[in-house]
Amino acid sequence: MSRKRTLDDHRVHATEREQAPREHLYLVLDNIRSLANVGGIFRLADGFGVRKIFLCGITPSPPRPEIAKISLGAEDTVEYESLADPAKAVWLLHDQGVPVICLEQTDRSASIFETTFPRPLALVLGHETEGVDEKVLHLSDGEVEIPMFGSKHSHNVTTAAGITLGEIRRQWSSASGYGFPGGQ
Amino acid sequence: MSRKRTLDDHRVHATEREQAPREHLYLVLDNIRSLANVGGIFRLADGFGVRKIFLCGITPSPPRPEIAKISLGAEDTVEYESLADPAKAVWLLHDQGVPVICLEQTDRSASIFETTFPRPLALVLGHETEGVDEKVLHLSDGEVEIPMFGSKHSHNVTTAAGITLGEIRRQWSSASGYGFPGGQ
Repeated sequence: MSRKRTLDDHRVHATEREQAPREHLYLVLDNIRSLANVGGIFRLADGFGVRKIFLCGITPSPPRPEIAKISLGAEDTVEYESLADPAKAVWLLHDQGVPVICLEQTDRSASIFETTFPRPLALVLGHETEGVDEKVLHLSDGEVEIPMFGSKHSHNVTTAAGITLGEIRRQWSSASGYGFPGGQ
Repeated sequence: MSRKRTLDDHRVHATEREQAPREHLYLVLDNIRSLANVGGIFRLADGFGVRKIFLCGITPSPPRPEIAKISLGAEDTVEYESLADPAKAVWLLHDQGVPVICLEQTDRSASIFETTFPRPLALVLGHETEGVDEKVLHLSDGEVEIPMFGSKHSHNVTTAAGITLGEIRRQWSSASGYGFPGGQ
C-alpha cells in the first residue's frame, strides 16, 4: 500500500489553510522580465502564504497564459498590484510600517542564514541579470544574500526566492511556535 | 556609487569555491520529466556544492541545449551519472554509507524544518506529478516535506529542491562552523 498522501488528504489541508489568515509577508518584483519567473513566484507565494505581491516596472501582470501555466492559477489566490515605479512599493510598505529587505549581493549584504528576519517583512526580488534597482536598494532597509558554494554567482530568481522564503518561514515558525498546517 | 558586488568580486569568490572540496551531498532525480527542471536542478546543485547527481529512469541527461539554457552550463561543474533504475542509485549510495531521504509527502514525512539532516546525505526528487517511485520510497531511509501554507499541494520540484538544499546547508553550516565562502 502506498504511503503517499492522497488528494483527499490534501484537500482537507488546503481548506484549513485557506481559512487561516495570511502572514504579513510581501514580495516586491522589481522589473522581473520572464513570464515563467512571475508564474513561478506566484506559485511559491501561494505555498508560503504571502499576503500580497507588488508587480513593478516591466514585470508582466496576470492574466497571461504563460504565467498561469507555471503558477497553476496561484494568481487567483494571492493578492497583487501593478506599479510602474518600484520605489512606490517601498513607500507604500514603509507607510504601513513594513521593513523592506532586498535579495541582492552587495558590499553589506548578510547571509540569509545569519539574518534575523523582522515580522512583518517585504522581500524585493530584482531583474534576472541586472538585480535590484539602485534607487530601491537605497530606499530599502537592508540586503540579504544566499551563500554560494559553486562556480555560479547566483541562483535563478524564483529558486532564490524559494530558498529565502523558506528561511523566513522557518524563523517565524520557530519564534512563535506557529504550527505547520500542512505538516504532521 | 553602486553597492552591488562586481563581476571581479564574483570571480575571486568563484575561484576560491572551485578549489574547496565538494560536500558529501548527492541528488537522485527519480524520473524527472522536464528538461527545464533538470537544467534548474543542475544550476542549483552547483550553487549548493552538490557532489554528484544521479539521473534515473526517464530523466533526460546532458548534453541537451534545453538543459544548458537553464543550467547556465552547470553540467560542466557537477558530476552526474545516468541509471535506468532509480533503485540502483539507492543501492550504490547505501553501499557507500550514504543515507537516502526522499522529498515526498507521505504518512510519515517530517517537515524539513523539524528534521536533523544526516551528513553525508542523498536527497531523492521525484516525478513532477507522480512523485517518488514506490520502490524507491520503500528502499530509502525516510521522507521529508516542505510545510505548505496556501491552496496548492506542492512546490515546483526545482524550487522545492532549492528550499530543501538551503535548509540542509544551513544546518550543516551551523553544526560545523563551516564558513560561507560566498558570504561575509
